Amino acid sequence: MKSKFVVIEGLEGAGKTTARDTVASVLREHGVNNIVFTREPGGTPLAEKLRDLFKRGVGNELPTIKAEVLMLYAARVQLVETVIKPALERGAWVVGDRHDLSSQAYQGGGRGTDPQLMLSLRDAVLGSFRPDLTLYLDLPPLIGLQRAQARGELDRIEQEVLPFFTRTRERYLALAAQNESIVTLDATQPLEQVTASIRACVSRWLQQQEGV
Amino acid sequence: MKSKFVVIEGLEGAGKTTARDTVASVLREHGVNNIVFTREPGGTPLAEKLRDLFKRGVGNELPTIKAEVLMLYAARVQLVETVIKPALERGAWVVGDRHDLSSQAYQGGGRGTDPQLMLSLRDAVLGSFRPDLTLYLDLPPLIGLQRAQARGELDRIEQEVLPFFTRTRERYLALAAQNESIVTLDATQPLEQVTASIRACVSRWLQQQEGV
Repeated sequence: MKSKFVVIEGLEGAGKTTARDTVASVLREHGVNNIVFTREPGGTPLAEKLRDLFKRGVGNELPTIKAEVLMLYAARVQLVETVIKPALERGAWVVGDRHDLSSQAYQGGGRGTDPQLMLSLRDAVLGSFRPDLTLYLDLPPLIGLQRAQARGELDRIEQEVLPFFTRTRERYLALAAQNESIVTLDATQPLEQVTASIRACVSRWLQQQEGV
Repeated sequence: MKSKFVVIEGLEGAGKTTARDTVASVLREHGVNNIVFTREPGGTPLAEKLRDLFKRGVGNELPTIKAEVLMLYAARVQLVETVIKPALERGAWVVGDRHDLSSQAYQGGGRGTDPQLMLSLRDAVLGSFRPDLTLYLDLPPLIGLQRAQARGELDRIEQEVLPFFTRTRERYLALAAQNESIVTLDATQPLEQVTASIRACVSRWLQQQEGV
């Protein structure tokens, strides 16, 4: 089977790390042993530096929303061109912790950046490159925030108000509904059930791919 | 008169710094005392950090051409939104050492980035915001490089081959020919003549603006 790009998406506290491990485990059971893991924003030294810059700014200066979006896309295209595409080309599979859907949801939905700008940027920068499968772990933001807070993981973006995350979730759900390569999973279920759903979803998808 | 944004453009060694001083001097003679100077890429702590990152990269990793263009636009929009537009709104004039035309010429012309991507980015990021007047100091790249080399100012971009600068100059000239707010000046002339041309050009333009 041709190598694929699988992405895990969701709000903070949705369980992306566990989901990534589950996906990798299912892939290995299906004979996929060469897996590259990425995270966004970041994943290369330059992209990680951009992630740090857009999260912390410089001194008291934070990026404007447009500067933030452009820095995110700079980091993304650097990762896609120097890590993800070369990995896929040499036959490795790629499992990503977030990809473009995060920008559409957080910067587009959450921050209210002009949707036309977001889509123009995506198409101008990435062309037709898209994940083969995206697992979106859906849950109400309050539950995710409580989980993330318990882990001490909140930073500038994550400390923003609840309405921001509510808008982000709404955009996630709307985009998932429009795109059949995005599967929405209920992340409010107990962990074992979420894991079972991911296993079932990925196994079924792999069988469909093998059938093609 | 409403405050304006005047930009100096040209290859390395074209004489942009002297031109900037000349423009400022003519503006002051016309009663403009509140002038903000900018340089691009850069001009804010965050934008300078992005300039440094895109010129040097991180370790051995340099940005891909698309990542470079996105970092440039991140730096530009940060400068426009937090420095240039606020200055113009409070009545200051802005004199810029480079602006968007540099990206169109260097990344578009020199590096051969898809012109559609360059124009989409400009319009998506900057909307209709443009300089009121651009002075493009034109000279053959070899002359400019020799001058810049004598000052020890060559960095990664400037060390690239001559054809790169030839393509950059061609794009500058083509864009200047299409846009009447861009004035092309012959920068191969002796310095005093270039300065006299700039003085004459800016004075005439200011009189036109006053007449409007």
